[in-house]
Amino acid sequence: MAHQNLAQQRLLIKGGKVVNDDRSVVADVYVEDGVVQQVGPNLNPEPPTGLVVLDATNKLVIPGGIDTHTHMQFPFMGSRSKDDFYTGTKAAIAGGTTMIIDFAIPQKGCSLTEAFDTWKSWADPKVCCDYALHVAVTWWSNKVKEEMKSLVQNKGVNSFKMFMAYKDLYMVNDEELYAAFSCCKELGAVAQVHAENGELIAQGAKKMLAMGITGPEGHELCRPEEVEAEATQRAITIANAVNCPLFVVHVMSKSAARVISNARREGKVVYGEPIAASLGTDGTNYWNKDWAHAAAYVMGPPLRPDPSTPGFLMNLLANDDLSVTGTDNCTFDICQKALGKDDFTKIPNGVNGVEDRMSVIWEKGVYSGKMDENRFVAVTSTNAAKIFNLYPKKGRIAVGSDADIVIWDPKATRTISAKTHHQANNFNIFEGMVCHGVPVATISRGKVVYEGGAFNVTAGEGKYVSRPPFPPYVYKRRNIAKYMKIEFSVLIYHGSIHEECFCILSVTYCE
Amino acid sequence: MAHQNLAQQRLLIKGGKVVNDDRSVVADVYVEDGVVQQVGPNLNPEPPTGLVVLDATNKLVIPGGIDTHTHMQFPFMGSRSKDDFYTGTKAAIAGGTTMIIDFAIPQKGCSLTEAFDTWKSWADPKVCCDYALHVAVTWWSNKVKEEMKSLVQNKGVNSFKMFMAYKDLYMVNDEELYAAFSCCKELGAVAQVHAENGELIAQGAKKMLAMGITGPEGHELCRPEEVEAEATQRAITIANAVNCPLFVVHVMSKSAARVISNARREGKVVYGEPIAASLGTDGTNYWNKDWAHAAAYVMGPPLRPDPSTPGFLMNLLANDDLSVTGTDNCTFDICQKALGKDDFTKIPNGVNGVEDRMSVIWEKGVYSGKMDENRFVAVTSTNAAKIFNLYPKKGRIAVGSDADIVIWDPKATRTISAKTHHQANNFNIFEGMVCHGVPVATISRGKVVYEGGAFNVTAGEGKYVSRPPFPPYVYKRRNIAKYMKIEFSVLIYHGSIHEECFCILSVTYCE
Amino acid sequence: MAHQNLAQQRLLIKGGKVVNDDRSVVADVYVEDGVVQQVGPNLNPEPPTGLVVLDATNKLVIPGGIDTHTHMQFPFMGSRSKDDFYTGTKAAIAGGTTMIIDFAIPQKGCSLTEAFDTWKSWADPKVCCDYALHVAVTWWSNKVKEEMKSLVQNKGVNSFKMFMAYKDLYMVNDEELYAAFSCCKELGAVAQVHAENGELIAQGAKKMLAMGITGPEGHELCRPEEVEAEATQRAITIANAVNCPLFVVHVMSKSAARVISNARREGKVVYGEPIAASLGTDGTNYWNKDWAHAAAYVMGPPLRPDPSTPGFLMNLLANDDLSVTGTDNCTFDICQKALGKDDFTKIPNGVNGVEDRMSVIWEKGVYSGKMDENRFVAVTSTNAAKIFNLYPKKGRIAVGSDADIVIWDPKATRTISAKTHHQANNFNIFEGMVCHGVPVATISRGKVVYEGGAFNVTAGEGKYVSRPPFPPYVYKRRNIAKYMKIEFSVLIYHGSIHEECFCILSVTYCE
Amino acid sequence: MAHQNLAQQRLLIKGGKVVNDDRSVVADVYVEDGVVQQVGPNLNPEPPTGLVVLDATNKLVIPGGIDTHTHMQFPFMGSRSKDDFYTGTKAAIAGGTTMIIDFAIPQKGCSLTEAFDTWKSWADPKVCCDYALHVAVTWWSNKVKEEMKSLVQNKGVNSFKMFMAYKDLYMVNDEELYAAFSCCKELGAVAQVHAENGELIAQGAKKMLAMGITGPEGHELCRPEEVEAEATQRAITIANAVNCPLFVVHVMSKSAARVISNARREGKVVYGEPIAASLGTDGTNYWNKDWAHAAAYVMGPPLRPDPSTPGFLMNLLANDDLSVTGTDNCTFDICQKALGKDDFTKIPNGVNGVEDRMSVIWEKGVYSGKMDENRFVAVTSTNAAKIFNLYPKKGRIAVGSDADIVIWDPKATRTISAKTHHQANNFNIFEGMVCHGVPVATISRGKVVYEGGAFNVTAGEGKYVSRPPFPPYVYKRRNIAKYMKIEFSVLIYHGSIHEECFCILSVTYCE
Repeated sequence: MAHQNLAQQRLLIKGGKVVNDDRSVVADVYVEDGVVQQVGPNLNPEPPTGLVVLDATNKLVIPGGIDTHTHMQFPFMGSRSKDDFYTGTKAAIAGGTTMIIDFAIPQKGCSLTEAFDTWKSWADPKVCCDYALHVAVTWWSNKVKEEMKSLVQNKGVNSFKMFMAYKDLYMVNDEELYAAFSCCKELGAVAQVHAENGELIAQGAKKMLAMGITGPEGHELCRPEEVEAEATQRAITIANAVNCPLFVVHVMSKSAARVISNARREGKVVYGEPIAASLGTDGTNYWNKDWAHAAAYVMGPPLRPDPSTPGFLMNLLANDDLSVTGTDNCTFDICQKALGKDDFTKIPNGVNGVEDRMSVIWEKGVYSGKMDENRFVAVTSTNAAKIFNLYPKKGRIAVGSDADIVIWDPKATRTISAKTHHQANNFNIFEGMVCHGVPVATISRGKVVYEGGAFNVTAGEGKYVSRPPFPPYVYKRRNIAKYMKIEFSVLIYHGSIHEECFCILSVTYCE
Repeated sequence: MAHQNLAQQRLLIKGGKVVNDDRSVVADVYVEDGVVQQVGPNLNPEPPTGLVVLDATNKLVIPGGIDTHTHMQFPFMGSRSKDDFYTGTKAAIAGGTTMIIDFAIPQKGCSLTEAFDTWKSWADPKVCCDYALHVAVTWWSNKVKEEMKSLVQNKGVNSFKMFMAYKDLYMVNDEELYAAFSCCKELGAVAQVHAENGELIAQGAKKMLAMGITGPEGHELCRPEEVEAEATQRAITIANAVNCPLFVVHVMSKSAARVISNARREGKVVYGEPIAASLGTDGTNYWNKDWAHAAAYVMGPPLRPDPSTPGFLMNLLANDDLSVTGTDNCTFDICQKALGKDDFTKIPNGVNGVEDRMSVIWEKGVYSGKMDENRFVAVTSTNAAKIFNLYPKKGRIAVGSDADIVIWDPKATRTISAKTHHQANNFNIFEGMVCHGVPVATISRGKVVYEGGAFNVTAGEGKYVSRPPFPPYVYKRRNIAKYMKIEFSVLIYHGSIHEECFCILSVTYCE
Repeated sequence: MAHQNLAQQRLLIKGGKVVNDDRSVVADVYVEDGVVQQVGPNLNPEPPTGLVVLDATNKLVIPGGIDTHTHMQFPFMGSRSKDDFYTGTKAAIAGGTTMIIDFAIPQKGCSLTEAFDTWKSWADPKVCCDYALHVAVTWWSNKVKEEMKSLVQNKGVNSFKMFMAYKDLYMVNDEELYAAFSCCKELGAVAQVHAENGELIAQGAKKMLAMGITGPEGHELCRPEEVEAEATQRAITIANAVNCPLFVVHVMSKSAARVISNARREGKVVYGEPIAASLGTDGTNYWNKDWAHAAAYVMGPPLRPDPSTPGFLMNLLANDDLSVTGTDNCTFDICQKALGKDDFTKIPNGVNGVEDRMSVIWEKGVYSGKMDENRFVAVTSTNAAKIFNLYPKKGRIAVGSDADIVIWDPKATRTISAKTHHQANNFNIFEGMVCHGVPVATISRGKVVYEGGAFNVTAGEGKYVSRPPFPPYVYKRRNIAKYMKIEFSVLIYHGSIHEECFCILSVTYCE
Repeated sequence: MAHQNLAQQRLLIKGGKVVNDDRSVVADVYVEDGVVQQVGPNLNPEPPTGLVVLDATNKLVIPGGIDTHTHMQFPFMGSRSKDDFYTGTKAAIAGGTTMIIDFAIPQKGCSLTEAFDTWKSWADPKVCCDYALHVAVTWWSNKVKEEMKSLVQNKGVNSFKMFMAYKDLYMVNDEELYAAFSCCKELGAVAQVHAENGELIAQGAKKMLAMGITGPEGHELCRPEEVEAEATQRAITIANAVNCPLFVVHVMSKSAARVISNARREGKVVYGEPIAASLGTDGTNYWNKDWAHAAAYVMGPPLRPDPSTPGFLMNLLANDDLSVTGTDNCTFDICQKALGKDDFTKIPNGVNGVEDRMSVIWEKGVYSGKMDENRFVAVTSTNAAKIFNLYPKKGRIAVGSDADIVIWDPKATRTISAKTHHQANNFNIFEGMVCHGVPVATISRGKVVYEGGAFNVTAGEGKYVSRPPFPPYVYKRRNIAKYMKIEFSVLIYHGSIHEECFCILSVTYCE
């Protein structure tokens, strides 16, 4: 039934400014069968009957947002995140996001495939927009390697996340990281890391508790910036040793962001993902006198008390030192957070963001003057699509693209509040932020699922999206090519040697 | 006649991989009236008669190169550069470049408009491909300001270059720079700088000669890297004081490139243009025992003796810390260079590049593994088109774009040599470089002007291209918007103040 | 009379911990004729009669502070700084400083020697401690050059300051800077710069006033950090071109400090002087709602609103990226500041510091944990003595040194306040700061001039101190040697060339 | 007998320039009982009989060098380093070094105390100059902790080295590092690290061998710079987490040196030790066609192929970004090196340096113009004495200091060669280097042990030197104080929070 409706829906978006990552142009957009059919001035698709028309005059028509990092209904730290795939994706479309990528996370020793199947079984009946699944590698064995291969070849997975934190739970050591990166490289998958030194966190937490610091501020104090920067540097070094592209999830600090930027300048293929939280608020909240307020901001890595952090990250995002944005959306309400009332290490980690990401980035990025509307589209949608090999089906409004489209009013404002948001949680870390830039209507696969504050969507209407390996955007440079033969000795014995060129002289790529 | 031919020429490029800056796709390209009409699989344009068909199977189909920096038939240092607008543009198309932007440079005290008219009168009857003209601001007065306005409004000029070097000839001081940048900002033009400290060069040259160093090595010794880096930093600081976007021409050194990269990270709108010479060779040549060889590399700013410079610049170009590429093509033959036989300060400054730029960047950038084919298109064509407001007419292969197209064979190789090149000069600074990646055919406005080594082009077939002001790519961020009202005092008296945010809190943009 | 007393005064400081820049040791110090005669345990100088004994048990015995930067009774901006050489030096000794270096500043076109004589005639009858004079070079001519030589050879001057700001008043351009640096190098003098881009300040001030910003915040807004950083970079580049050591006065911002640190890492001989104000307070005060408060902080370059500035500068001072500390003490009271009531450009520039410098640095540097007591001595006294060629007569407690000594109680505390300070001004920019570390007694040339809050000093007791040229600390490295012969061509034609080594290969020093 | 001779030896060094780290002065030095008794002009110690007089006119009189890093007769990689404590220390004194610090290195699971005793039993009968022993921590347990305590309290050990490389042999993991650093901090010892990522080396070596790269170049290729930089960053981060001062041994690369410099700028207490090899030669030697030549340079971490490395490290050493110099002297002859003929991983790691360190640093540091003679003394002797708590007994020529003195002729030259050196090895990595600056005479504890090329020394004349814990130079800053009480919560709830200051606000030190 849903499918039939979809197939029949014909939609014309009239008079808006169509914004892609390379330029903006006033044009109509005609959609049929969930796919963009025409983009141009003064379209008059025939027949007029059955045609839904949306007026986008003085509005922007942008590719729907892609949130690269969510944890819906995630069983974690003795609780389960409050937003499930239904409320979470409903909130997403209310905010202008039409696709999320969640994480299937097996326990150590458990099957990756089963984890994938479990998460998919949770998501499929509930999702209101398209989604995909990253899979976590939390231990290492030949079986894990086999499963990674199978997930890539049979399940449309092209990204795997490794944790350098959460000691004894999810953390892998350098040897395992090396193995996992090698495997990603071979399979053409994107290696992701949660970059924090888990050993230092474990020790730091013990020390804080021993000093009698049990409140949320202890969460930040035991894992300062350099704990994140160190792990980021280490991950990049290890990935580079096997020539594997790397994606650093949730970049939270200036120092970690600097590590990523510097690596990129040296030619390394590494992507950084700041999130709505790190771009829109900061870690001074951990010192709020109200425990509940402070606890609500607890996540890992933590927000940073340096108030210039968000602006710094936004500058790098504007400049393509950082590439895409997610949210790490993983909501827990006050009762759940209270598990850590007497011990910050037991506060379930997680914040909201899936609904507000687009508005927060518009406000802090575009309205503030740091980026234009095209860069906004790049960092909220296009780059994610490129990195995870969904482009140009996702991330662009062009003939042939999926009709995941948002009509965005850059003049309207809204005030973020837990009272009015659509997430399941009763707290919003952006409470009170006035945002210029509001999604007026959201279209998912050609259907208007949200308009003027009203939903028109059913659980399960979203689809799982397969992602093929070897995304060209990530893997096409020759120095990342699948096979390479090193011929140092012969070549280098001749001629002069110097830093920059001797690698290049000495490598032969086999395509 | 020419126009008629052009109008009638119908062209089909079959089976190639069409490469734009965002992705590559195997598709046919159909061209009519000098404009791309269709891009897609299996095109069969009717009628088949009169249709020119180019087979691009296993080849890349890329937007023609745009060389942002040439000096054809430039009267300079008591001589005139050897390549005129005919040989220069002919060499360009042989190398896969379909548009150049040259510089009209008035003497101090002379009219900018007259300089523009003079250069245009030289170019129009000779050019074999499209071209535009930057105009230099070599002095300051109200008349200059008026002429800048008129050039922008009536002559299609949207960029002005200021020299911080060539003391007493072209050099402007900080006060004049400030005025020129302010004017560019107001007009929506791109401010360009030749960034070297002219005072230090003048003093340094005197010192070298006094020490008896008269050879080409003196040219580099009297203007080391930091002379370039200092001026770059100063130009960025002054431009930022008036919120003016800045384009730094011919980035030659690691330190200057670092200055630009750092400014971009801080959110400043600044673009850096490395050139074929700085990406493909280095300043060790100034110590070559053969005077003629050494002198042939003399240009300002000089190539750097640090042999890791080209690789470093290429890394930054790959990473979008640097944005576009030119050549500063300004050729002098050995007899002309010999004017400085006994005094390096009299060697006419200039090197070749317009023909070889595309191949050099492919070799050192793509073949070396530092960038993929899409980034190659971005840095050789698309970004130039965006910055100088020619996009998507230039810089992209899409319906409606000018048919400036190159068929590129990434498997073929050629060896650069003065013996075989098409430039007027008898020396080539890239002599002997084996380049993988060869232009097989070049199409200018829909006409195949070069194919398989043979030209089919007449002097004057190229056109002058007008460029409107306020390029969106450069000027659309709100912090670069035309007018702004600063409201520091009121807003800042409330709440806390810190580095990053207080600018943002305090500025209101008026659009 | 005073001299006779001094000659006879025999002093024993017992039981203290003698702190020099290299180590601390518990020892007695015996002084006769104004000079340290013995340092060691259990001294019992004979005869006991006429011996003044100071008990320093549990206290530190440190070299008296040297304030490298003051402006006593300075005629400036239509007023004259309030502290003259009497109140200023009296305040100095109350704070533990036993020598100041002030500036003789001629108007453009006026004689340097006359300025020197004028300032000396002001100081000699008034000073309560030793002093010296830097001389400013505010214009350029052969006469200036001759006078510089004469001041060095006949007047004991070994440092000259050039202003890059105060356009039309004191500012010199790049050509003049180059000449002045060359001359300093030849004479063995230390070149000093006030590093701000005067052109940008002039333009920025106009802009602020035009926008209706007339209050003290406008002072900072029209000369942001990068205006200081740019000039610092430029001064270093120019000085390096003539191989002249450089001393950057009043380092006020993180970015300027970074420029200096980076230059030092590259081997350049450059010293940075943060001041009490930049180490102890910040520019948020410019936004204080009380005009008088805000205006009291107006100085050039301004304090910075980034509150992490003082800590950052202190880190670099601890690490020898910055070298010495001054104050730029130049006090104006509220009535004087009120000259700029309606126009911030007319507020006389200047703050206090000469009395509180030692305490502020102890508090923010030592008590905070960033440096130890030895580094404290280095940055408040020893390094100044080394740079200005007064070491080890000043800056060290050792046999043969001048008995300029302070007994410092690291356990005592005092609260800084205008109500209790000894400066002529009625405002203190450090008001309310609680300082651990208090000077208990101050000894100048062997006489106890201040003890337990009481003075025992007469105007004119201090002496002018001649400083010979070519300070070894500054000038002894071979790459700064007086003459050098460059032999690039021969050496470099052989063998390989690369960045780092070719300078070294090619230079021959002549000593 | 030796002792009696020593006690009686009275020595006068006449007319030299006495160079300490703070200044140089022409003075005589009188020595009795192995200790400096007088320093001053025109000394005439009575009685003249029995007085040995050394004429040092036109020479420098400098503190004897301290080599912080040697491995004499070290059983390693299936062999034993060729220089034992006799030939090694004899070579040392020939080169102007009067003290070495070697390493006692237990196998995993073995007793630290036994290792210490073993090494001491090897050294005592053989040493020709004073020495001390660092002890390595190669595994972790309560017993190790107890032994560390005992070594500090009973054996005069105040430094422990941990290896981050040599997987399965010496390498400790992050958890062990954390424990060892904590223990060092508690004991007041200096924590040292060999900073390389051992996991990446192990994997890299496997990969190289698999690719058929078995020669010495493979040694460098499998452990590029970033492997060193990563571990350096990690060690600093972990040490900082427990507030432990850190000493990074053998800094070999620009990137690792940058990591250290940056940490110092942030206020961290970290010292970097470049070595003669990294300051005097480079890794291009690994590509020498002569296997024996290439293998002779194999050491870990390797020398770097970037030829600008030595100059870069010397700049940082001149600027106190790096602090002291050692050699990692660990010599193997060609027959020993041949163990790795078919597999570079089996080439015993080690190079010479103990004899040539002083000359190499003089040549590349002082003669090149990068540092003056005082800084030379600081980096070859004084700073080592300060860090390892031997100052001012060692590292300074002053009354009361040990008479470890070298007479240095800065005008003389010598050419380094294996044919003439005094080390046991038949290869010298500095072969052919012409050094300006030659040790004319070496005095150890007041005895002239080397003069004009002749030795006058017996095995066992040197002494083991105990080093007390808590070196003031390292441990005196309050932020490194022994105990601290963190009071974040109370203090931080009041007032504003920002990056730089909140640590300082929140810490109370208990002394």
